[in-house]
Amino acid sequence: MYLVTNERLNKMKKILNTRQDTLRVFMDYVYSPHNLSAIVRTCDAVNVGKLYYRHQKKVKLNNEITMGAHKWLFTEYVEDIENFYKNIKEKGYQVVVTLLDKDTIDFREVDYTKPTLIVLGNEVDGASEVSIKYADKKVIIPMYGMSQSLNVSVANAVILYEAQRQRSIKGMYDKPQLSQEIIEKTLKKWTYEDIIKAKK
Amino acid sequence: MYLVTNERLNKMKKILNTRQDTLRVFMDYVYSPHNLSAIVRTCDAVNVGKLYYRHQKKVKLNNEITMGAHKWLFTEYVEDIENFYKNIKEKGYQVVVTLLDKDTIDFREVDYTKPTLIVLGNEVDGASEVSIKYADKKVIIPMYGMSQSLNVSVANAVILYEAQRQRSIKGMYDKPQLSQEIIEKTLKKWTYEDIIKAKK
Ligand SMILES: C[S@@+](CC[C@H](N)C(=O)[O-])C[C@H]1O[C@@H](n2cnc3c(N)ncnc32)[C@H](O)[C@@H]1O
Ligand SMILES: C[S@@+](CC[C@H](N)C(=O)[O-])C[C@H]1O[C@@H](n2cnc3c(N)ncnc32)[C@H](O)[C@@H]1O
Repeated sequence: MYLVTNERLNKMKKILNTRQDTLRVFMDYVYSPHNLSAIVRTCDAVNVGKLYYRHQKKVKLNNEITMGAHKWLFTEYVEDIENFYKNIKEKGYQVVVTLLDKDTIDFREVDYTKPTLIVLGNEVDGASEVSIKYADKKVIIPMYGMSQSLNVSVANAVILYEAQRQRSIKGMYDKPQLSQEIIEKTLKKWTYEDIIKAKK
Repeated sequence: MYLVTNERLNKMKKILNTRQDTLRVFMDYVYSPHNLSAIVRTCDAVNVGKLYYRHQKKVKLNNEITMGAHKWLFTEYVEDIENFYKNIKEKGYQVVVTLLDKDTIDFREVDYTKPTLIVLGNEVDGASEVSIKYADKKVIIPMYGMSQSLNVSVANAVILYEAQRQRSIKGMYDKPQLSQEIIEKTLKKWTYEDIIKAKK
């Protein structure tokens, strides 16, 4: 019996083979469902390696919020923020915090082909103190109008598509970054979940 | 009596002096208040010349939707769509329709330093037939994941910031595109409205 079509299996393989393991996003207390939903969709589209998040009240990304898109991303809830930053820096990631301060550089000056964590701030308060403490780069998207800031899901997209631009020029979407082992394991999980869903 | 500070007046002047008169956006039946709000903010930030829109039910952009940002943009409700496209093409604008079809080019292949109208489609149905009929270029933003599309306010931002990139390289934010007459007239209007507001 064949419950996962070849076309769908090929799509899954293509996603895993182009996944940008070394491009990751952290939502630092982003809370609006509309923003969460748009951010998840953009992270899926640019095919980031992992989406981290934390929330004032502990929540899970669910189907209602993301219309299923989060299922295809690797996501992780951050419990211990200090540990999180220490670990990711140990792995060689640069921490790029998006910020509206004076003390920032233009977002296009960053080399996003390096292992990079992009940090998005809360809708009202911006990025937290601890995120700023661990920042290797603080970046701003230039604005020429009256508004003080962009919507956070918009800021995320502008930066991720700059990363996509740099990475596709370098051919980073052309060869797999994930290990063959992780690709196989994930394919198993995804096809299994597809079959479960089909049986319901 | 001085009700508009010098700082604020300078801000207004700066906005008008960097306004990209020849970069415009048309929202073709975009309806979600969240999307309208994010699109207005991004258009303000990139400082587009004009934001056109039409709506299934005739609406106006209001403060509730845009938190005031639309007041600083030139906006126009499109009544007669055929006329609208004929007029803008006569003025020498290229019509760039964002689309999810096969028959599209990568959005980065377009020269946005030319007079350009960017067309955004409805959240469910995409761009209308008439917009597609008048399209000079049909563009897609590449996606590598499971989702079928990006959020429309996200798509708008990714394209506008590509336009901003091309235009700032060419120095197009460094000299005024609006006539001195329009700049003066708009300054009068804006300062007047500021005083009215201050009096309330
Ligand atoms: C609405 S803004 C936060 C506004 C908050 N009042 C502040 O001053 O930080 C929400 C988030 O969007 C991102 N953001 C918005 N506009 C941005 C810009 N122009 N440059 C960089 N990040 C931006 C940042 O991650 C920010 O924390
Ligand atoms: C949610 S999409 C429309 C989906 C609709 N089902 C369709 O097939 O057109 C809303 C609008 O966002 C824009 N959009 C979304 N993703 C895009 C992409 N990858 N490339 C270009 N435009 C996109 C287009 O303007 C589109 O009309």
